[in-house]
Amino acid sequence: MNGLILSKDARIYLDLSRAQQTNFSAHHASTGAQVLQMSQEQLAQVRWLLAEPALALEALDKLPNLRWLQSTWAGVEKLLAHPRRDYILTNIRGVFAPLISEYVLAHVLAHERQLYAHREAQKNRLWFNHVTGTHVGTLRGKTLLVLGVGSIGAGLAQMMRHFGVRVLGVVQAKRDIFECDVVGTMGDLPEFLPQADYVVNTLPNTPVTQNIINTAFLESMKPSAMFINVGRGQAVVEDDLVRALKNKQIASAVLDVYRTEPLLPQHVFWDTPNLILTSHTAAPSFPTDIFKVFWDNYQRFNAQQTLSHVVDFSKGY
Amino acid sequence: MNGLILSKDARIYLDLSRAQQTNFSAHHASTGAQVLQMSQEQLAQVRWLLAEPALALEALDKLPNLRWLQSTWAGVEKLLAHPRRDYILTNIRGVFAPLISEYVLAHVLAHERQLYAHREAQKNRLWFNHVTGTHVGTLRGKTLLVLGVGSIGAGLAQMMRHFGVRVLGVVQAKRDIFECDVVGTMGDLPEFLPQADYVVNTLPNTPVTQNIINTAFLESMKPSAMFINVGRGQAVVEDDLVRALKNKQIASAVLDVYRTEPLLPQHVFWDTPNLILTSHTAAPSFPTDIFKVFWDNYQRFNAQQTLSHVVDFSKGY
Repeated sequence: MNGLILSKDARIYLDLSRAQQTNFSAHHASTGAQVLQMSQEQLAQVRWLLAEPALALEALDKLPNLRWLQSTWAGVEKLLAHPRRDYILTNIRGVFAPLISEYVLAHVLAHERQLYAHREAQKNRLWFNHVTGTHVGTLRGKTLLVLGVGSIGAGLAQMMRHFGVRVLGVVQAKRDIFECDVVGTMGDLPEFLPQADYVVNTLPNTPVTQNIINTAFLESMKPSAMFINVGRGQAVVEDDLVRALKNKQIASAVLDVYRTEPLLPQHVFWDTPNLILTSHTAAPSFPTDIFKVFWDNYQRFNAQQTLSHVVDFSKGY
Repeated sequence: MNGLILSKDARIYLDLSRAQQTNFSAHHASTGAQVLQMSQEQLAQVRWLLAEPALALEALDKLPNLRWLQSTWAGVEKLLAHPRRDYILTNIRGVFAPLISEYVLAHVLAHERQLYAHREAQKNRLWFNHVTGTHVGTLRGKTLLVLGVGSIGAGLAQMMRHFGVRVLGVVQAKRDIFECDVVGTMGDLPEFLPQADYVVNTLPNTPVTQNIINTAFLESMKPSAMFINVGRGQAVVEDDLVRALKNKQIASAVLDVYRTEPLLPQHVFWDTPNLILTSHTAAPSFPTDIFKVFWDNYQRFNAQQTLSHVVDFSKGY
């Protein structure tokens, strides 16, 4: 019992582990309060921890012999804010591209197929075409602009091309990317933005990517275009986006990430017209995906091998 | 001027035709009332008609020399109800598979990603997870059952497999279909239905397919499963579906087609729980697609060749 599984899904991870190794055993808890009930002796046994970052933070001071922490999330900012650095921190990577693709597709299709307008018509017992006179659209022939063509952006590009969508990609240093029809850099935005029906930001939060979605950017977009943010909230100048939506400079926006999460109840975003909000659920962490990463690292840890997806405390990712 | 374009999109078809052939000319109208304003001489000139079925029906008795009618729709039931049979009727086929696939994907993703629940949370300024405690799902690993694996069903199957969905197909006579993981007949439904997360009906309306979606069918489905009808309304026993949704025998249903269209304002479907209605908009007819079929047939007509997609008045399709 030299490990602790501290997660809302602790029971699932325990079962998955036992399915791999019948004599597997570990302490497990699903709340910080349960950790407080563990004895000093039990806490001292813990050399590895599988945990959500927020729960790990509650336990971090209580585990003197912790050597390895496997985060169940990609984002470990909360742990980086803690001064402790005498353990190896690993996170989850590489499992999110298909999920982000599904999210973007869900929202682009909801837009083209006017799902929300159909819902409103249904509530009013009205046959859709009779109300609005508008028609539903299709993906085919549309143009997607992807900001950042890492594994997530490339996966999205490939999937969208499957539906007859043309893809423009923006990267830091120009290179050929087979998933895109055209690749450029930030300098190409004035040429790319007016062509795009959908603009999707997948960029991480770095000094270079902060505040890039601003008035100048939004004014270059088509009035019929849609902006989707699955990268980080810091990329968006919030007031500029609200103004663009109110002035119908762009048709709609979908946000999954924000400067502050959860979004505060008084935030202007909640009732901004044509703005669709989701709550950082674009790429849900499925226990089976996380388990695969954990189990691979668990075997490496026991064999004293190098772990995968180690977070560099100095770089912050 | 030996032709008449009678369509809400008449202007578009005229422009597309002129782009193909600069000296193209035809009568055109967008309503039945405009046809009434045409002279007897003009009406007698008309040897071909490109029209929506409902508009064509209004004009059918006024065009003594009609030889060929190109419907802008796939469904020509309205014209089949008219006794006149002394002309060649052609319809639109083969352009709907990608559009139906988009429709099904839009609704399956809206279900997995809980788009409507997110919308409700947003209206209440609530961060989604905090409200419901539920989590969003994914397509990967799910099972789709397709009733009818013609061009539409096969296109849907292929697209869904791209997302890691397993596909069971039901056809009239068992044969290998590369787009499906397993193929069976109606007799295999008791085995197939309990496996399916999504059941999609793409079958046309024939005596064999009427009322197949009934209580026995719905009781065999998983309580977490979703039923989608993009075939014909006659396949569904309406009361049975309403009962299954009210009793939570299945999780949800999405209907695009009905026994009577438009759906009457007093119909029980409008506010049946977990029932999503759209108004026969799954496969919107895009003028450019329809034009391609028309233009090919127009050239064949002028060259006195056999037309494509001829409707057999005796079979009804």
